[in-house]
Amino acid sequence: MRVEVVEQLREIVDSDAVRVSPNELYAYSFDATPLVQAEPDVVVFPSTTAQVSRVLALCNAERIPVIPRGSGTNLAGGTIPVAGGVVLNMTRFNQIYEIDEKNLTATVGPGVITADFHRAVEAVGLFYPPDPGSMRVSTIGGNVAQCAGGMRGLKYGVTKDYVMGLEYVLPDGQVLRCGGKNYKDVAGYDLTRLLVGSEGTLAVLTELTLKLLPMPETKMTLTVFCNSLVDAARVVEEVIAARITPATMEFLDQGTMHVVDDFAHLGLPRDVAAMLLIEQDGSPVQVQRDIERIAEIARAVGAADVQLAETPEDGARLMAARRSALAALSRLRPTTILEDATVPRARLAEMVQAVVDIAAKYRVQICTFGHAGDGNLHPTCLTDERDTDEIHRVEQAFEEIFRTAMELGGTITGEHGVGMSKMKYLPQRVGPGGIQLMQAIKGAFDPNGIMNPGKVVAGYQPQRVVVRQS
Amino acid sequence: MRVEVVEQLREIVDSDAVRVSPNELYAYSFDATPLVQAEPDVVVFPSTTAQVSRVLALCNAERIPVIPRGSGTNLAGGTIPVAGGVVLNMTRFNQIYEIDEKNLTATVGPGVITADFHRAVEAVGLFYPPDPGSMRVSTIGGNVAQCAGGMRGLKYGVTKDYVMGLEYVLPDGQVLRCGGKNYKDVAGYDLTRLLVGSEGTLAVLTELTLKLLPMPETKMTLTVFCNSLVDAARVVEEVIAARITPATMEFLDQGTMHVVDDFAHLGLPRDVAAMLLIEQDGSPVQVQRDIERIAEIARAVGAADVQLAETPEDGARLMAARRSALAALSRLRPTTILEDATVPRARLAEMVQAVVDIAAKYRVQICTFGHAGDGNLHPTCLTDERDTDEIHRVEQAFEEIFRTAMELGGTITGEHGVGMSKMKYLPQRVGPGGIQLMQAIKGAFDPNGIMNPGKVVAGYQPQRVVVRQS
Repeated sequence: MRVEVVEQLREIVDSDAVRVSPNELYAYSFDATPLVQAEPDVVVFPSTTAQVSRVLALCNAERIPVIPRGSGTNLAGGTIPVAGGVVLNMTRFNQIYEIDEKNLTATVGPGVITADFHRAVEAVGLFYPPDPGSMRVSTIGGNVAQCAGGMRGLKYGVTKDYVMGLEYVLPDGQVLRCGGKNYKDVAGYDLTRLLVGSEGTLAVLTELTLKLLPMPETKMTLTVFCNSLVDAARVVEEVIAARITPATMEFLDQGTMHVVDDFAHLGLPRDVAAMLLIEQDGSPVQVQRDIERIAEIARAVGAADVQLAETPEDGARLMAARRSALAALSRLRPTTILEDATVPRARLAEMVQAVVDIAAKYRVQICTFGHAGDGNLHPTCLTDERDTDEIHRVEQAFEEIFRTAMELGGTITGEHGVGMSKMKYLPQRVGPGGIQLMQAIKGAFDPNGIMNPGKVVAGYQPQRVVVRQS
Repeated sequence: MRVEVVEQLREIVDSDAVRVSPNELYAYSFDATPLVQAEPDVVVFPSTTAQVSRVLALCNAERIPVIPRGSGTNLAGGTIPVAGGVVLNMTRFNQIYEIDEKNLTATVGPGVITADFHRAVEAVGLFYPPDPGSMRVSTIGGNVAQCAGGMRGLKYGVTKDYVMGLEYVLPDGQVLRCGGKNYKDVAGYDLTRLLVGSEGTLAVLTELTLKLLPMPETKMTLTVFCNSLVDAARVVEEVIAARITPATMEFLDQGTMHVVDDFAHLGLPRDVAAMLLIEQDGSPVQVQRDIERIAEIARAVGAADVQLAETPEDGARLMAARRSALAALSRLRPTTILEDATVPRARLAEMVQAVVDIAAKYRVQICTFGHAGDGNLHPTCLTDERDTDEIHRVEQAFEEIFRTAMELGGTITGEHGVGMSKMKYLPQRVGPGGIQLMQAIKGAFDPNGIMNPGKVVAGYQPQRVVVRQS
C-alpha cells in the first residue's frame, strides 16, 4: 500500500488508530481459524460512522481491500485479509446507545461484546437469546455479520431473528439505514436480513437495532446419558414428537464427554456413548411440567440415566462445561478444527454415525458435540497442522462429512459462515445459479470488490495464505 | 401481444390454461385494491414448475411482463398488470406435499389457500402462526410474496419468520432452490429472506418449505373497553412493561366498533372510545395467569370495562368479528381504502390521535383498527371513488398519515407491501441510496425487468391505469 494512503488514513482517524507495526500486522493476520493466515497492510480503528465512511471512500477510490473485524473469533477464516489491505477494527464502537423497554429493542454499536450486552439487557429483566460459544469474546457486530447461532436456536432462533434495523456504510462511503423499531415493516426488499450473515462482504455495519424478549422467569436443566448415539437422537425426536420445545438440547459424544469431564471435573459417567444437556425456560409451572415429561420420555427411550440439576448453579455449571468443549478439546493436540455440519433434526443419528465412520475411514480423531435440537453438529478434529499427511486425511474426512450432510438434506455451515473455509463447498450447496445470483448481489453493493475479498462468493487469492508457524 | 406468443404459451401449458377472453382479462385487471386497474394481455394457469420455467423463458426472450398472482387479495395494487403482459395464475399449485412432524416443517405449493393450510397442520397438532385478514381467500404463495402479517405478529412474528426454503424460477427460466429444512443455515447470502416480501418482482415461487410450531394447548380472550385512545394505548404499554407477551392485542376505535357491532351483533358498548381484543395462548396455567394479570393491569389503567370470554366459542366469535372489520366497513360507502401505517408500539397513542386529527382536517371519514401489539394500524377511509374532490382530500390525508408515521419512527407499510400504492412513499422511507440498492438487486434477478413491472422499485406506467367504472 502506498505511503500516501496510510498518511490519508491518519488524517481521517485518531492519531493512535492507524497501526502498521509488524507485531500489529501479525496479530491481525489470523482469526480463530486454524491453517489460514495472511497479513493486512494496515489496521485501522475507526471511532465514528463518519470515519468509517471516509476510510471506505478512500479505499474504494484506491481499490484497497477492507476487512471489517470485531474480536476475530471467526471459525471459517472470515476475517483473514487474504488480499491484504485495511483491517477495519470496529471494537471502538462499543457503546450500548439505548435499551428501549417500551418497544423491547436495543440499539448498540457493533463493537459491544456479546456477553456484556446479555448482562446489560438482563439487568432490566430483558433477554437477548443468541448465545454463540464465543460470546464472552465475540462482538455483536461480528455475530450479526455471521448470523451467529448458539444453544437456543431450536426455541428462539438465531441472530437474524433479532436484528430489526441497521446503520451501514457502503464501499463508496454512503451511510444508509434499513429497518428500525417496527415489528412489521415490508417497505421494499429486506436489506436488513440480506446484510445479516453477509460476512463483511457487502457493507460495514455501524449501528444495530436488536429485538429483545422478556426474560424467562426460571429455567431447569436435565442431563440425559445414553448407551448409543441412536438412543440420544431418539430422545430428541420423541421430545419434539411430544410437542415440547426445550430452550436447549445439546449433544456430546463420548469423546467430548471425557475431555470436558477431565477439564471441568463434573464426575460424568465414563461408559456411556453420549449425553444430552437439556434446558427449559419459562414460568415455573411450565418448566417443571416440561422437564418432568422430558425425563419420562428419556427413560421410556431407555436412557442409561437421567439427572435433574439440583440447583440453578448446578445447571449453570453444566452449561458452562458444555461451553468449554472447544477449549477442552483444543488442549489435546496442537491443532483443533471445529466444523459446523448441519442436518434437519430428524437426520441427526445418521449424521453422527456417519462422522464416526468417516473418522475411522481416514484414521483421524474427531469428537462431535453440538446443538442437537436444531441438527447443528460440531465435528471437531484433533490434529497437528505440521503433519501434512494427517492434515490431508483430515481434509478428505471433512469433504466427506459435508457431502454426507448435504445428501441428508443438510448444509455446509449452520452458524459459522462460509468465509474462506467453505467457499469450495458453497457451489454444491446453492448451485451455480445460486452462486451467480449472490455474486450479482455482491456487485450491487460492492462494484469494485473491495469488501472482504476472497470470502463467500468473491474469488480468493491463495498466494496470500501461508500456514502459521507455531 | 403477438398471436404467435399466445400460440407458444398454449403449447407450453394445458389447453384450458391460456385465457384471452374479454371477461377473463377484465377479471384479472384488478385485485382487492381500489382505484387501480389495468388489463393483462393473457392469463396463464401453469400446473408445474417446468411450465413456469418455459413460460418465463419465453416472456423473457420476448420482453413480455409477467405478473405472478395468487387469489389477488393484495391491498397495494401489487398484482395489477400495469404494463399488460402475462398474469401467471399460480392457484393450480394447490397441493400440500408434506407435513414433516419430525422436523416441524411443511412443504406446499404456492397456490394452497392459507386457511386450508392452517386446518391441515392443526389436524396433526401443529401451528402456522401467520394469519392475514384475507386468509380464507389468500394463497400461501401470495402471503410469502408479500410477507403477510396478521394478528399474532407480536408474539409469533410474520410470514418471513416461517419461510425456511423455496423453489423459485428466475426470469430466464432457471429453476433454483434456497434454504431447506435446516433450523440453522448460513451458507451464503440469505436469498430466502430476500425473496420473501419481494412482491413477485424478482422470481416466481413454485414451492415453499415452512416452519411449524407445536399447537398451543389452549387460549383465552379478554375484551378491554377504554374511555380514551390514550387509555387503550396505556393498557398495551403496561402489559408489555409487565413483561407479558400476548398472542394478540387488537385495537378497534369507536367508529370501527359501531360498524362491527352492527354487522356481527355482539352487543358492544356504544359509548366507549376504543376496545382492545387480547388473546393469550399456551398451557392452561400460563394462559390463566397472564389473562388475570392483563385484566388487573387494564383495571389499574382505568379501563371502562374488562370482559373475559366465557367460552372458547365466545372468544372465537369476538376474533371473527374483528376479522370482519374491513367487510363491515366496506358496506357503508362505495369505496373503502384500507391503509397500513405502522409505528413502534410506544408511539401508538400519538399515531391514532394523529389519524383522528388528519381525518377532521381533510373532512374525510377514517375509522382505525389494527394490531396494537405491534404498532400496525389500519386507518380505513370510507369514501366514493366517483367523487374526485373527496378522493383528492383522501389522498392528501393519507400522505399526511404516512408522513406522520415516518416522523414517529414508523413505516409506510407494515404488512400489505409497496405494490403500486406505496411506490411514491418508498424513497422517503428507505432513501435514494436504499432505492438504488433495491433497483440493483432487482437487476441482479431480473435484468430485463419483466417481473411484475411498475411495482416496488421498478418504474411504473400510469398510462395503463384507469379508474374502475363500478
